[in-house]
Amino acid sequence: MQTLEKIEPKFQELTSHLAQIKDLDAAAALLDWDQTTYMPPGGASARGRQIATLRQIAHQKMTAPELGRLLEDLRYYEKDLPYSSKDASLIRLARRNYEQAMQVPASFMAELSLHQAQCYEVWTKARPENNFAAVRPYLEKTLDLSRKYAGFFPNADRIADPLIDRADYGMTTAMTQELFAQLRQQLIPMLNAIVAAAPTDDSALHQSFDEAQQLEFCRQAIARMGYDFGRGRQDCSPHPFTTSFSIDDVRFTTRIYPDDLNQGLFSTFHEMGHALYEQGIDPELEGTPLADGVSAGMHEAQARLWENCVARSRGFWEYFYPQLQSVFRRQLGNLSLSEFYRGINKVARSPIRTDADEVTYNLHIMIRFELELEMLEGKLSVQDLPQAWNERYQSDLGIVPQNDAEGVMQDVHWYCGTIGGMFQGYTLGNLMSAQLYETALTTHPQIESELQCGQFETLHHWFRDNIYQHGMKYTATELVERVTGRSLSIDPFVSYIRTKFGELYQL
Amino acid sequence: MQTLEKIEPKFQELTSHLAQIKDLDAAAALLDWDQTTYMPPGGASARGRQIATLRQIAHQKMTAPELGRLLEDLRYYEKDLPYSSKDASLIRLARRNYEQAMQVPASFMAELSLHQAQCYEVWTKARPENNFAAVRPYLEKTLDLSRKYAGFFPNADRIADPLIDRADYGMTTAMTQELFAQLRQQLIPMLNAIVAAAPTDDSALHQSFDEAQQLEFCRQAIARMGYDFGRGRQDCSPHPFTTSFSIDDVRFTTRIYPDDLNQGLFSTFHEMGHALYEQGIDPELEGTPLADGVSAGMHEAQARLWENCVARSRGFWEYFYPQLQSVFRRQLGNLSLSEFYRGINKVARSPIRTDADEVTYNLHIMIRFELELEMLEGKLSVQDLPQAWNERYQSDLGIVPQNDAEGVMQDVHWYCGTIGGMFQGYTLGNLMSAQLYETALTTHPQIESELQCGQFETLHHWFRDNIYQHGMKYTATELVERVTGRSLSIDPFVSYIRTKFGELYQL
Repeated sequence: MQTLEKIEPKFQELTSHLAQIKDLDAAAALLDWDQTTYMPPGGASARGRQIATLRQIAHQKMTAPELGRLLEDLRYYEKDLPYSSKDASLIRLARRNYEQAMQVPASFMAELSLHQAQCYEVWTKARPENNFAAVRPYLEKTLDLSRKYAGFFPNADRIADPLIDRADYGMTTAMTQELFAQLRQQLIPMLNAIVAAAPTDDSALHQSFDEAQQLEFCRQAIARMGYDFGRGRQDCSPHPFTTSFSIDDVRFTTRIYPDDLNQGLFSTFHEMGHALYEQGIDPELEGTPLADGVSAGMHEAQARLWENCVARSRGFWEYFYPQLQSVFRRQLGNLSLSEFYRGINKVARSPIRTDADEVTYNLHIMIRFELELEMLEGKLSVQDLPQAWNERYQSDLGIVPQNDAEGVMQDVHWYCGTIGGMFQGYTLGNLMSAQLYETALTTHPQIESELQCGQFETLHHWFRDNIYQHGMKYTATELVERVTGRSLSIDPFVSYIRTKFGELYQL
Repeated sequence: MQTLEKIEPKFQELTSHLAQIKDLDAAAALLDWDQTTYMPPGGASARGRQIATLRQIAHQKMTAPELGRLLEDLRYYEKDLPYSSKDASLIRLARRNYEQAMQVPASFMAELSLHQAQCYEVWTKARPENNFAAVRPYLEKTLDLSRKYAGFFPNADRIADPLIDRADYGMTTAMTQELFAQLRQQLIPMLNAIVAAAPTDDSALHQSFDEAQQLEFCRQAIARMGYDFGRGRQDCSPHPFTTSFSIDDVRFTTRIYPDDLNQGLFSTFHEMGHALYEQGIDPELEGTPLADGVSAGMHEAQARLWENCVARSRGFWEYFYPQLQSVFRRQLGNLSLSEFYRGINKVARSPIRTDADEVTYNLHIMIRFELELEMLEGKLSVQDLPQAWNERYQSDLGIVPQNDAEGVMQDVHWYCGTIGGMFQGYTLGNLMSAQLYETALTTHPQIESELQCGQFETLHHWFRDNIYQHGMKYTATELVERVTGRSLSIDPFVSYIRTKFGELYQL
């Protein structure tokens, strides 16, 4: 049995080793953010090299023999600590990350990282040119490397499991497929019923809206909703994203379109949701690997909560719509709140995931999830992917993309990452957001009337106290069960959708 | 004798080791740039830690035993290469950096780095409050650490030598003192004569000027002068600076004042000079330590060339003044070119270094240089520094600062760096800029008439070919001698000042 005097310095050493990794990650994230927002075009090639260097050094530190020894030495210390204590959680997470990193050779990570940068570069040019042939060889290599990555985890049941687990720890292919199958069964008839009902006219949202005024409205709204501009900032970029360099510096980007009010509003509220999560992590965890969102799904849940459950609700706009009208009097002066509310919740079979409404969104995800599974399992080649994509859009959503740019090349994920594990988090997030929101509303029924008055504290603080603050201390599965009292289910989401759209479309 | 087959991989290894250090430095520089330009206030504390981590890892790599071994193994290879070849220069510079870094313990560098961040933080608050007492203990520690640093180089003649050498390789306290003494002897009578002449009225430059229009004018001017916005950007910050993340991403900041046209114009032209240097380095050197300005003095020379020799010349404004007038017709419509030219060259005894004219500027530098020398040599305590500062301003410039904010706390250097070696580069730069410009004009007499037509290629390319492209292949001393055919002298500068201000003030 080791004494505390011996343990203390080892734990200190662990903490500072992990802090270095965190700092390298934060630096790489800033280089990435800068590349997307302010970097001049000439900077790209050196920037790729610089990010790769930081990632490589971080990976070396994540697999350093001294880290393994420290974790071994701290095993007994960890045993005596409460599961939910900061120290135990830190050691537990560090061990999980270490063991995962040790499975993958550094040379492979370097190859992957280099390939990802190249593939992304090619995609950014090929997509506007609708040139799938140009990215095909790169995507084939992505698939090859993704399969190789999965191969480093030989105990997995299914080839996609390690890739899913990496993004949504604890989830498997089988669990995801089960949830998705249940969900699809509910969504398809609902979608058919909605599409059969009267179509929604949202042309009022597609007039001309000054971009600076849109941005200013969004800024004021999210400041009221709880986003802390003293600890973050909002910039514009073609592909909105949130990134964090510390708990006190959480930034996001927005996409503003002059002819589509939805883009600016909902990309802002979505990314703000991600950002509230990171801003709400317990300051005690700063500088440790615990200071992060717990999984892709849980992160997405926070974004979808604020984007959909809150900012696509009627109550939210009872407070904000008069303000929006006063900014855009000419365009919205004669549009009633009800018409606006219907417009921002228009359900339609459309080709683009990020533009999809709450009813069809998860069908877009399922297509991607299943296609990547088929590719990983050798049932679908990259060559046949565009056709398979189009066929699935035809069969599941009843539309055929006009071209590959709108089809198989629309999302960046496969082109800058891996194939496998990239998409399930979106739907898991939708399910979690509904389940968590249901619990929040049960606990604090006043939340809905507060939204109507532009009051967000109760909701924000409930999420901060129950989810945000914990960072990575618990797994997503643990969090859902702790907070909602049961495991993840499709029921709250289905019930939320059924109520909201049943009312909207008088089903 | 080693064969090339054995050497090649070692040289490759050296190159990639050095590239990692370069990437870490670039990342730290970007974190720093972001902190100054776009970072939200909350980000500061984590940012300090992150930069320190990057610097620490870079320092570990700079002193890594494998680097020492590689440099040893490559000694014979280097011997057979021409001095000016890229490979020989790279090995030579890497060895110099390695040997210098090895003199200083990593723990000291970590302590220094931490202290510098704290001291800077305290200064930023203390300066606007005019509270020297608040920074005094920090400055005492800065002095203590600076002396310690110098102590790691026990072979130096004078305690300031290692600190001067670090910024201006090859220069010593004695050499600097000698140049400064000569220069002072020339400047003092000139200043007295100018001040005795009729005072200049530059009130026209202190009207109200729209900041966005100022910035836009500057952007267009420097694009014409040769700054490549595809490989850089210009932002605003209270303390203008230039920073480089690669040869193809060289950014600078400007300070725009609504009531002082000088600030925006000349901080832009000054920083652009620094930036042209870095943008002009041979692309072959990218990613190596050779891709950098050669010394503090040589870097400053490029800034002062474009700021003073070019953009404070009458010829330059023959082309640009009509454009500036058309932007600010109300303010400048009735101001003649001659009046404007006199205004931007107004000579005055003033308390702020960065606002000083070309005649008095070096007197500001000499005060700082001598005060830091006295502190390092134990002849002046930090406690007595404010009084010594004020006395020197009284005796050398004939003015007494109103308070410490305007006095001893005006420059950031001592508060974010070290004491010693921080200032001589400014005056060395002024001397070099005049000596180099004189040679350029002798070689291409058409440069002056080209400036009058807004043509900058001949001048820009001469500097690119003779200075910029070489990066750190030669030392500053070597460059001056190669290019001008003689060693650094005060004569060209004195002659430049005498001609220009003699004419302006009819002396």
